[in-house]
Amino acid sequence: MNAADRQEWALLQAVLAAELQAAKALTSQGKAASYIPELAKSPPDALGISIMRADGAVLAEGDVHLSFTMQSISKVFTLMLALMDNGERAVFEKVGKEPTGDDFNSMLKLELVEPGIPFNPLINAGAIVISSLIAGRTPAEKAERILDFFRSLAGNEELDVNESVYRSEAATAHRNRSLAYFLKDNNVLTDDVEEVLDVYFQHCAVQVTTRDLARMALVLAYDGTDPITGLEHIPRRFVQIAKTFMITCGMYNASGEFAIEVGLPAKSGVAGGIMTLVPGRYGIGVIGPALNAKGNSVAGVHLLERLAQRHDWSMF
Amino acid sequence: MNAADRQEWALLQAVLAAELQAAKALTSQGKAASYIPELAKSPPDALGISIMRADGAVLAEGDVHLSFTMQSISKVFTLMLALMDNGERAVFEKVGKEPTGDDFNSMLKLELVEPGIPFNPLINAGAIVISSLIAGRTPAEKAERILDFFRSLAGNEELDVNESVYRSEAATAHRNRSLAYFLKDNNVLTDDVEEVLDVYFQHCAVQVTTRDLARMALVLAYDGTDPITGLEHIPRRFVQIAKTFMITCGMYNASGEFAIEVGLPAKSGVAGGIMTLVPGRYGIGVIGPALNAKGNSVAGVHLLERLAQRHDWSMF
Amino acid sequence: MNAADRQEWALLQAVLAAELQAAKALTSQGKAASYIPELAKSPPDALGISIMRADGAVLAEGDVHLSFTMQSISKVFTLMLALMDNGERAVFEKVGKEPTGDDFNSMLKLELVEPGIPFNPLINAGAIVISSLIAGRTPAEKAERILDFFRSLAGNEELDVNESVYRSEAATAHRNRSLAYFLKDNNVLTDDVEEVLDVYFQHCAVQVTTRDLARMALVLAYDGTDPITGLEHIPRRFVQIAKTFMITCGMYNASGEFAIEVGLPAKSGVAGGIMTLVPGRYGIGVIGPALNAKGNSVAGVHLLERLAQRHDWSMF
Amino acid sequence: MNAADRQEWALLQAVLAAELQAAKALTSQGKAASYIPELAKSPPDALGISIMRADGAVLAEGDVHLSFTMQSISKVFTLMLALMDNGERAVFEKVGKEPTGDDFNSMLKLELVEPGIPFNPLINAGAIVISSLIAGRTPAEKAERILDFFRSLAGNEELDVNESVYRSEAATAHRNRSLAYFLKDNNVLTDDVEEVLDVYFQHCAVQVTTRDLARMALVLAYDGTDPITGLEHIPRRFVQIAKTFMITCGMYNASGEFAIEVGLPAKSGVAGGIMTLVPGRYGIGVIGPALNAKGNSVAGVHLLERLAQRHDWSMF
Repeated sequence: MNAADRQEWALLQAVLAAELQAAKALTSQGKAASYIPELAKSPPDALGISIMRADGAVLAEGDVHLSFTMQSISKVFTLMLALMDNGERAVFEKVGKEPTGDDFNSMLKLELVEPGIPFNPLINAGAIVISSLIAGRTPAEKAERILDFFRSLAGNEELDVNESVYRSEAATAHRNRSLAYFLKDNNVLTDDVEEVLDVYFQHCAVQVTTRDLARMALVLAYDGTDPITGLEHIPRRFVQIAKTFMITCGMYNASGEFAIEVGLPAKSGVAGGIMTLVPGRYGIGVIGPALNAKGNSVAGVHLLERLAQRHDWSMF
Repeated sequence: MNAADRQEWALLQAVLAAELQAAKALTSQGKAASYIPELAKSPPDALGISIMRADGAVLAEGDVHLSFTMQSISKVFTLMLALMDNGERAVFEKVGKEPTGDDFNSMLKLELVEPGIPFNPLINAGAIVISSLIAGRTPAEKAERILDFFRSLAGNEELDVNESVYRSEAATAHRNRSLAYFLKDNNVLTDDVEEVLDVYFQHCAVQVTTRDLARMALVLAYDGTDPITGLEHIPRRFVQIAKTFMITCGMYNASGEFAIEVGLPAKSGVAGGIMTLVPGRYGIGVIGPALNAKGNSVAGVHLLERLAQRHDWSMF
Repeated sequence: MNAADRQEWALLQAVLAAELQAAKALTSQGKAASYIPELAKSPPDALGISIMRADGAVLAEGDVHLSFTMQSISKVFTLMLALMDNGERAVFEKVGKEPTGDDFNSMLKLELVEPGIPFNPLINAGAIVISSLIAGRTPAEKAERILDFFRSLAGNEELDVNESVYRSEAATAHRNRSLAYFLKDNNVLTDDVEEVLDVYFQHCAVQVTTRDLARMALVLAYDGTDPITGLEHIPRRFVQIAKTFMITCGMYNASGEFAIEVGLPAKSGVAGGIMTLVPGRYGIGVIGPALNAKGNSVAGVHLLERLAQRHDWSMF
Repeated sequence: MNAADRQEWALLQAVLAAELQAAKALTSQGKAASYIPELAKSPPDALGISIMRADGAVLAEGDVHLSFTMQSISKVFTLMLALMDNGERAVFEKVGKEPTGDDFNSMLKLELVEPGIPFNPLINAGAIVISSLIAGRTPAEKAERILDFFRSLAGNEELDVNESVYRSEAATAHRNRSLAYFLKDNNVLTDDVEEVLDVYFQHCAVQVTTRDLARMALVLAYDGTDPITGLEHIPRRFVQIAKTFMITCGMYNASGEFAIEVGLPAKSGVAGGIMTLVPGRYGIGVIGPALNAKGNSVAGVHLLERLAQRHDWSMF
């Protein structure tokens, strides 16, 4: 670590508490997701951030002990696992590479745009297809492989599925069933719908802390190789693909704005998590359950905008 | 029956064979539905028509011995049964009264137009909701009540569900499942989706001949009272509602054109059937499995256009 | 006129004032159109109705001296004039016959549905195309022919364009310009856009009273021949086409509901006018500037529902 | 320039002819735009590329003497000029920051998504709004300022509007008129539509070579400061915004795919040009008039994919 890096770290350390406190004020402008009872229980004014650097040192501020479900953040990793299991060609026969401009659970383009495959792997329709591409003889085996993958990336064998969130989603996620049957009708999904959704609901319900997200993101920041352990988890090309999708589609239909205001690959989840990274430098995890109208953590996004602009982190 | 009526009947009798023969030539322009294997087996060049008058006399021409499944034609009758079971207010809280201009299985307006209820009871989404409104403690009981209702209208105790078509649809109709789960997510459907669809698939698979359709249509032509038996099957207001929907939405998104070229309340089905009526005079059943691009019997529509224009049957 | 007709007329006369008074209460639920300043000046609580029978007798109640611009009501007549000028085939190469389910000025289906022609002649896009099909060497000549046609139908040589409404629309109707240029890009319109719109704005701005509308509707109720003068103004087939469109598309995207609740061919305009007819019996004109969310006179629709249900006027 | 850079330059020089030759084979899979006669005249099998580095050295291969109109490539620069003229806040009140997933001239989201402003400044609707934001008392003055800006960036005082392309577009671009009037109706455009479009058509018709594009791109690759002259043309923040849009929206609705396969900020035009850049290193201009289904130069995209992958140019 050179002098400039040391200096930035010290500066970050100095300002993080104040920036977090300032951003926390915005939590009142958002609202925790309520579509499943478990999510509605999140403390709406919480805000926490963990920033991890290559040697494993962590800056942690705010509600970093809060644990929450990954939700859509998990999709970045299932995409990479599906690429490792199937290769680029097979994956991109079933999902496209384009942002949609529509809501994350929209069905418009499936009906309107030939050939009726999901536009990208980070919207719900695409992520459901990706879940169907994970290798494994049974849904349980697929879910197990995904969980193992997440654990190894997070360096945390304790990671597990939050059973009550998983059951709650499985019981109520009729829009996802609707998407899945549409895909089945279009011959994009060929497996049993409930079995595919079972895998999907499980990986969305993996419970993490901001520290876990920061560690997983750190692996992406170092192109697939954990800088702490030196283990190569993911081929660099697949990390590149994932990071590109995080820029173009990672923050729902506010991805374009996030790219302009923050300029870092990121993925948000409906539980209020955001995973982002500064390439070659940091992995970052954020939690802030109060969401804005586009479904992203209102205070989390603001905090990242402030940090990115102050430290000139944009890739662009 | 007055002299003018007698004369028209004689004229119809005289021209029907030739008109049917001429229309038969158009069958080559269409194609039998293939989305379920059973339907693809229909003879694509078949064409048959039965016209029944108030005294039960029937003009029958062409392939009138062909039996086929009612498919969407059944939706006219389940609508009336749901109205009888629930009243207008309860039914129209869950389905609208407007044509859509979209395909019969489109989901666009469910996503785009508040409050996300089906636009009308004759598109798939609406008919599925209607199936959920039929009284009965179990799906089997609902299906039984529907079948009884159809039998009494057709005066044919032999009417029954074609089991292989029913099973075939139940196994493959993923787009309908997608619609149903979307409706469930919108809280328009509250019952178990597979149970509702089971009722829906059964009434779509009721097997009839053109004579059955003609008899059922005759009841509508006489405002709900069977002119042959004198039995009042359906309150006149509910027949009025059904006939209005048959004009505005009965022929998929070719309903407007049919209203202009034929001008009679009608409903078509994907097996190639068309049920129509001349108010106060005839019930008419048509079969012609070769469908045009809009999903209506290509030769059947042509035959009805010719007859309606020759005999000035348009209501307008 | 037979005894039953006399009796109905007497009954109508007896109840009309009370029905109108009851319906007037609903005006507070609506709002006069405000997109052009002239329309916003209409008295929002006005309500008037004229019912004319074949011998020219008129029942008039409420604000029948109010004059207002025809707006979309004019489209029924320009359609028939275009049919007289060009024949069915040429007209229906450029406009379809289907209701849209969308707003009257929507562009969705022009972009989404091949071949990009307006779905019907009563939505704005279709009516603009119809305006382009009126015979005449210049826009002025076309507008003059239209005005002459309206005058002869209304039996009122005083009918004229409200210049200030016309100018107001010409200055502000950018959505119509957008529609027209889209149609030009699709090669559906070939004339100069501003010239076509000039014709369109003029016929929309023709000023009438409910009595004028009732007289014009009476000609349609008698299939194109004025029962008072015996003059045949329009071939019966073209009246049939117009009446069919009035049922399927006449009341914007509340046409289906109006068909079920009233059951008569009708056309509304944004100034609050409604023209409707009881086939073979009456021509009816209504004014009520307060509009509901779908753009129809809120009290006018209610009044017609009450009268149609009380007197069993539905065609269905 | 360090050793690695020298080595890459030498390698590029060595392979460029062969790569271009290989990519040229793909021209037969595309088709030159034909919507204006002038564009249809382009040699469909042409392909040329210029790569410029900070000291002004250029690698040029293929049809580099071909001149062509910038078309949509110009929109990147008018965006930056509008930002310089108005600031971020004023610009982003009138255009959004999101990719659409729709065609570049689509009107769907203008109608469907509140508040009806263009989703981003690189689709036609957005670029037209941007043209209206360029400072200047008259359209001529605005067009002149834009041309001066382009000339200074290209270091080429000869740059000029291709009058026949400009006139051709002005005469035929009815879809753009439709977009502009829709925006005017939504109060996003307030100026006279034809005056705004006049500015727009002119900057789209500026004639360039691949060398001009490479030079202009070089300024962006160096964050707004021309590395050859040292002149600061554009504030770095506005270049950052432009580069971000080039990644998320620069290649029409193939932007996501280009980001994954090439990973560089780029903008294409319907004449077959592509402008791209390697941050901190090269400006690149490509011409290949044969377009793929998404409207991008089929051979040009392929050539850039090959070079980017071989030289590991992706930003991700």
